[in-house]
Order: sequence, then structure tokens, then C-alpha cells
Amino acid sequence: MTLKLYFAPGACSFVPHVLLELSGTPFEPTMVKLHKGEQNEAAYRAINSRGQVPVLVDGDVVITQILAIIGYLHDRFPEQRFLPTEPLARARVMEQLAWLNNTVHPTFTHVFMPYKFVDGTEAQAQVKAFNVGVYAKLLQELESFAARAVAQGPWLGGEAVGPLDAYALTVLRWGGIAGIDPERFVTLWSQAQKLAKEPAVARVIERERLQLNLYKPA
Amino acid sequence: MTLKLYFAPGACSFVPHVLLELSGTPFEPTMVKLHKGEQNEAAYRAINSRGQVPVLVDGDVVITQILAIIGYLHDRFPEQRFLPTEPLARARVMEQLAWLNNTVHPTFTHVFMPYKFVDGTEAQAQVKAFNVGVYAKLLQELESFAARAVAQGPWLGGEAVGPLDAYALTVLRWGGIAGIDPERFVTLWSQAQKLAKEPAVARVIERERLQLNLYKPA
Repeated sequence: MTLKLYFAPGACSFVPHVLLELSGTPFEPTMVKLHKGEQNEAAYRAINSRGQVPVLVDGDVVITQILAIIGYLHDRFPEQRFLPTEPLARARVMEQLAWLNNTVHPTFTHVFMPYKFVDGTEAQAQVKAFNVGVYAKLLQELESFAARAVAQGPWLGGEAVGPLDAYALTVLRWGGIAGIDPERFVTLWSQAQKLAKEPAVARVIERERLQLNLYKPA
Repeated sequence: MTLKLYFAPGACSFVPHVLLELSGTPFEPTMVKLHKGEQNEAAYRAINSRGQVPVLVDGDVVITQILAIIGYLHDRFPEQRFLPTEPLARARVMEQLAWLNNTVHPTFTHVFMPYKFVDGTEAQAQVKAFNVGVYAKLLQELESFAARAVAQGPWLGGEAVGPLDAYALTVLRWGGIAGIDPERFVTLWSQAQKLAKEPAVARVIERERLQLNLYKPA
């Protein structure tokens, strides 16, 4: 077995985790316990000096960064068509993946780990509160995109389940952690439920022991 | 003339600006004056609802997000080899582009526009100061990467000038704005100077009226 994925339950590593499971190829899912700080241990830092998940290991090749891993898996399993091959369709998917990765995802980091952006309990609480508001708006923007996309194809990137669907489920689920009820976003919620029923995705959800709606009313 | 690039001087739109100029194809560089708020005007929002640069217009196609634009330009000008075609080499470049886009770039945004992340003058000053420190560390990390990369090929992505070189110059230049002398980073600074001398890049630098070192000692 040459393929190994380092993942943390519920983290954005869910995206390549789903792609690998969809590929039908054997791989070794390896859990990194972020709450125990395993990502900061020397053994893990030797694999990824940035101490982040996901990391994909393919033989003696180590690849970090979700967008790089998605592209690599697309090239490795071309029959899966994880990304469109036509340039404009590919650019449309990449636009959303890049925005999820450089805007939506980092906004949630401000909510979940505000200490990465400022010192001091009070300033951290302010950063967190501000970004909960930003995050709700971003999920609404993603909802609008999803409504347009689903009017065309069954999945967010078109005909086949792909990285956009898995990333959208992930950031929607994080909404619950941020105090934003994911069921507010009708299209995203219905797509997430549909995605969760796909056999490969259901296996990943079981392995990561994920609950889709983590929202607790105040 | 079907290709148009909306750019702002010194912004990350420098990256596709350089690629278009390298391609040798005619295109219409269109300046968006961020300091005058042109990105928030209805005319521009109709092109990009997120009000950001860069935007690439190719006939009736509009593409946003720097990573999507890079991929699209790579597909449109395959002879330029803006990205490696071999999957692993491509993943190596994408890893760094993604990290620049989701980590280095947003960290600078905290320094330049802290009001995007928190309310209140005091909290904004704290966010700014904290992220100047983070940004200096990230530039050091980029310097280490660059030193390893340059030991192999003349440019950061290998044999040819590519998006990594232009993005590295951009974030290094922002260092000066953040109060970090770019000349501290020996490899990055020497690569930036070398890049600036490439004829296509020199034309972009002249059009954007860029100064490479904006650092002013306190």
C-alpha cells in the first residue's frame, strides 16, 4: 500500500479523504489528533514542517496543501474526473476552490483559533465575534453559488461528485461550530445530505465520526 | 483584442499581468484604482461581485481568483509552460502558490486592511502589529524555499519564469510596506532584481510604476 493520507476528523482533509475513497484504490487513512497536538510533534513536523493536515504520501512523495493534493489526485486518477478537463469548466471549479481555500477557510480559522491572529483574550474575542459575522455572509455567498450550480448539474462542479462538494460540506459543517445553523442554507444543506449518502462519502463520514449539524441553539 | 486584465498597481494582479506580458499576445491592461474605491463601483461589481483584482476577461468569459487565472492562462498558452506539465512538478509549484494565496497573502491583508478582520481602532492596531510579526516569519519561510529552489533551477518553479516568481516578488515588495526590509531576504531579493530585468517583466513594472523596495527605516 503506497498511498497514505494524514487527516484530522472534520478538518479540510475531508476533501482528499473523499477523493481517495471515491477512487476505489487502497490507501492508508492516518488520523492526526489535533486536540492532542500531534501536528506539533517532531514526527509529524518531519512530514509537514507546517504542522497542517492534509498530507498525502504517495510512495516517497509527500504533498501538502489541499489545492495541490486535489490537482495531484486528479492527475493520478484521470478516469475519476475529479476536476473538469475543459479549461473554462476547470477554471470555474478552481475559482470556487481557491475562494474556499483563501477566504472562507481562513475566516473560520479566525473563529476557531483567533490566537493565530492577535494576542490577548479581549482582542481575540473581538476577532472571533467579527469573523462569525463574516463567516455567515460567506456561507450565504456559497449558498447562492450552490443554487446556481445545482440548477445545472446534480453536483457543485457538474456531473460528478468532486472536491467542491466535499469542501462545501466541510465549511457548512464548520458553520455549526461557529454558531450558524447549517440548515439555514437550503441548497448547501440538501447537497450535504445527498453527498453524505454516497457510499464512498458515507464511509469517510463514518471513519471520521462526523455529525453534519453541530449547531447548538443558544 | 479579446483579452483584458483588470489590475491594480502592486496588487497580486501583478502575477497574471506578468504572464500575459510573457505570452506576447496583445491584451488590454485596465487599471482599477483601489485608493479611489473603483473596485466598489457598480460597473466593477458587475464584472466581479467580490470587488477584487485580478479579473481576466477573455471574450465573453470572466475569470476571477489568481489561482484559477494562472491555470486558465497555462491552458490557453501551453507553449509558455507557465506551470509544469509533469504531475509531481506541478504539485510542487501548486503547493507554494496555494500557500502564498491562502497564508502569506491574507497575512499581509491583516497588516494593510486590519478593518477587514476586527472592529475598533485599538483592536485593529493589535491585529496589524501581530501580523507584521507573522509576515516576517512567512517571508523567512519563503526565503528558505527560494534558496532550495534556486539551487536547482534559475527560477522558483524551475527552468522558466512563472507565476511563483511573480508572486514571490509581490509579497516581498509588500514586506517593505509592512516595515520589513526586503533586502534582508537575500535569495528573494536577488531573484526579484533578476526578474525585474526580464524584458516582459520590466514592461509590467513600468506600467504599474512599481518600486521594488518600499521599506522606510523608522
